[in-house]
Amino acid sequence: MFLSTLMPVKMAQKIIYSSLKKVGVENISLEDAHRRVLSEELISQLNSPPFERSAMDGYAIRAEDTFGFSETNPAKLRIIDSIGAGQVSNQVVKNGEAVKISTGAPIPGGANSVVMEEYTFSQEDLLEVEMTLKPGENISSMGEDFKEGEIILSEGKLLRPQDLAIIASAGYNRVNVFKKPKIAVVTTGNELVMPRPDIHGAEIINSNHYTFKAMVESAMAIPSVVHCFDSHKLVEDEFKKLLETHDALISTGGTAISKGDVVVDVTEKIGKVLIHGIALRPGKPFGFGIIQEKPIFMLSGYPVAAIVQADVFVRNYLHKMQGIENEPQIIHKIAMKKIPSSLGRTDYIRAETDGSMVRPLKIKGSGMIRSMVESNSYIVIEENLEGIDEGEECNVILYDSLRV
Amino acid sequence: MFLSTLMPVKMAQKIIYSSLKKVGVENISLEDAHRRVLSEELISQLNSPPFERSAMDGYAIRAEDTFGFSETNPAKLRIIDSIGAGQVSNQVVKNGEAVKISTGAPIPGGANSVVMEEYTFSQEDLLEVEMTLKPGENISSMGEDFKEGEIILSEGKLLRPQDLAIIASAGYNRVNVFKKPKIAVVTTGNELVMPRPDIHGAEIINSNHYTFKAMVESAMAIPSVVHCFDSHKLVEDEFKKLLETHDALISTGGTAISKGDVVVDVTEKIGKVLIHGIALRPGKPFGFGIIQEKPIFMLSGYPVAAIVQADVFVRNYLHKMQGIENEPQIIHKIAMKKIPSSLGRTDYIRAETDGSMVRPLKIKGSGMIRSMVESNSYIVIEENLEGIDEGEECNVILYDSLRV
Repeated sequence: MFLSTLMPVKMAQKIIYSSLKKVGVENISLEDAHRRVLSEELISQLNSPPFERSAMDGYAIRAEDTFGFSETNPAKLRIIDSIGAGQVSNQVVKNGEAVKISTGAPIPGGANSVVMEEYTFSQEDLLEVEMTLKPGENISSMGEDFKEGEIILSEGKLLRPQDLAIIASAGYNRVNVFKKPKIAVVTTGNELVMPRPDIHGAEIINSNHYTFKAMVESAMAIPSVVHCFDSHKLVEDEFKKLLETHDALISTGGTAISKGDVVVDVTEKIGKVLIHGIALRPGKPFGFGIIQEKPIFMLSGYPVAAIVQADVFVRNYLHKMQGIENEPQIIHKIAMKKIPSSLGRTDYIRAETDGSMVRPLKIKGSGMIRSMVESNSYIVIEENLEGIDEGEECNVILYDSLRV
Repeated sequence: MFLSTLMPVKMAQKIIYSSLKKVGVENISLEDAHRRVLSEELISQLNSPPFERSAMDGYAIRAEDTFGFSETNPAKLRIIDSIGAGQVSNQVVKNGEAVKISTGAPIPGGANSVVMEEYTFSQEDLLEVEMTLKPGENISSMGEDFKEGEIILSEGKLLRPQDLAIIASAGYNRVNVFKKPKIAVVTTGNELVMPRPDIHGAEIINSNHYTFKAMVESAMAIPSVVHCFDSHKLVEDEFKKLLETHDALISTGGTAISKGDVVVDVTEKIGKVLIHGIALRPGKPFGFGIIQEKPIFMLSGYPVAAIVQADVFVRNYLHKMQGIENEPQIIHKIAMKKIPSSLGRTDYIRAETDGSMVRPLKIKGSGMIRSMVESNSYIVIEENLEGIDEGEECNVILYDSLRV
């Protein structure tokens, strides 16, 4: 199959995303909610702070009792109670009175300000205040952080540590979040064996087993990985079984374009192949289909081609299934070397950024794992460009920015 | 305690890091190695590819048989065998012969190039080759990705999906990685209750329980969280018990500077307090100590102060314990508003970036969780600055860059 018959990347993405359905919602403990995605807007059930509280260790008093007083001429008050955090005073503070109070404790009735301990002198129940206070001084008012009934977080929020703090303070110990998609990974290839230090004959180590388990994890979904020999019957049975319990399927291998290949054939038989062959390098032999309304991403068996295909077509799909928006961030760097490309094809060149510069790695073949390991980014050459000159600005995507 | 007696941030960091010890090493399955940290240099046990292999679907031949031939004058050869990936041919290719070969299959003896299927015509065992091939064409040579005995990854590498691919292909199904540190989180405060929609009197919801469980998780360590009332006996017993099974301890609350406070008192009694009070806003009431050679991070009870303290003093410590280097990345943005500060104090202002600009959030008090939720970065004002003017460049740390 030649270049003119391959589908452009953007057209393929459009077809793929048109099949997208979000997974369902589940209610989980707030304990487990870090890095999960809110499936609903959250409204506070409480005021925060829930009461007028002291912002300092000191004395709750009436500000007017200190008007005009100073270090050389302190106001003289009487201490009538003492409360720590978690305690409530039953006293109502009247003129000339003070309640000793800890940071965070509720302001007793009658008081309208707190003098910091540092500006006082006390002996038994006598208190000297060595400054003039303003009403409200050192008091956090009820609901000044947020109020009951206010929206605190929106649907789609990926929850960080501080977001859990606001949810808890709003009175929730459970939250509704999108489920994590369950993704089946099927590696195919009769030549594949699991890693060991002694391999023989035509054996090749199944590195995709590890790469795509990790890739699914890094997209915050739940992988299960199986290997399948290149048999139509075995692949068909495996696909059918896995699709009963998974939200999507990723296969590696069996996608060659020049001939009928097992994964693509099976998908066509029990579902529909919508895409087969992309104007993308590396990554041409990519297929996408639908079986039982679930998406099938058919990746190359070659490690680098398969990783590029997953970064271009799969990662963000898995994000969107669980309500996460994370469009790839394109940044601009100066190419340190000339990079040839062909019109009508999108190239993803493994590269290493260095300040404002980017160095394309010497690349040979879509099986060269080392280039993927030693790089930190892609130079993306869109299909309307015939390459990039040395010193020219180019589009770069950092691998780290593909993760949420 | 007044500003002049508080310790500068950088001096505190130096004291804290001088106590740092890496946790041990464990040997784990490569299945579980995504986002773990290599504790040793890895050397390949294998060549990759492990043999000379075909980069294309086509025919393995001797290049000299095609010299001078073309589409109009094809070379005529005889097909003597056919192999797929995972198969080995027992034939040795002689002049005038060809072996049909799939991508990834080992090149048969005698052959020195592969002609792509697209440039051939075949009928039964007769093959026409419509081009001139160079020796080596469409062949991936043995070890061209990496060779047996070569270093493939260094100690301290945080493993990404593609790194697992190279480890597997180098013949390993297990790896040595740094253990994840076990971190005890102790929330203190008699006023604290777990989240519920009806709280009473002086009760405050214990949001730190969730925040610091998540914070430890986000630093890739393993948290266990307990709550403890403000009693010297209870805190002492809890600290001793937890330190038997954990690598470090983080407490919240009980760090006020104006008076003796339970967590600091207990640490002084059973260990040593090295730091108490930092020239940092928010976050002044921070303590650090050592008990039984293990670090104790004593954070404020106030959510925002505690988060800033953890971002400044704890996160990176937890990273370094497991061999991860991730220094905070300071970027430069233009302040959209004037920000006052004081000489001799480091300020961490919650802020929201917008292109090349950064907007400081209106901040009131170290208890305002909402400011932490609605921001994506800190503006850092170093202690030698008296604030930032509107339109002036300032130092910014994105929250996302604090995570690895």
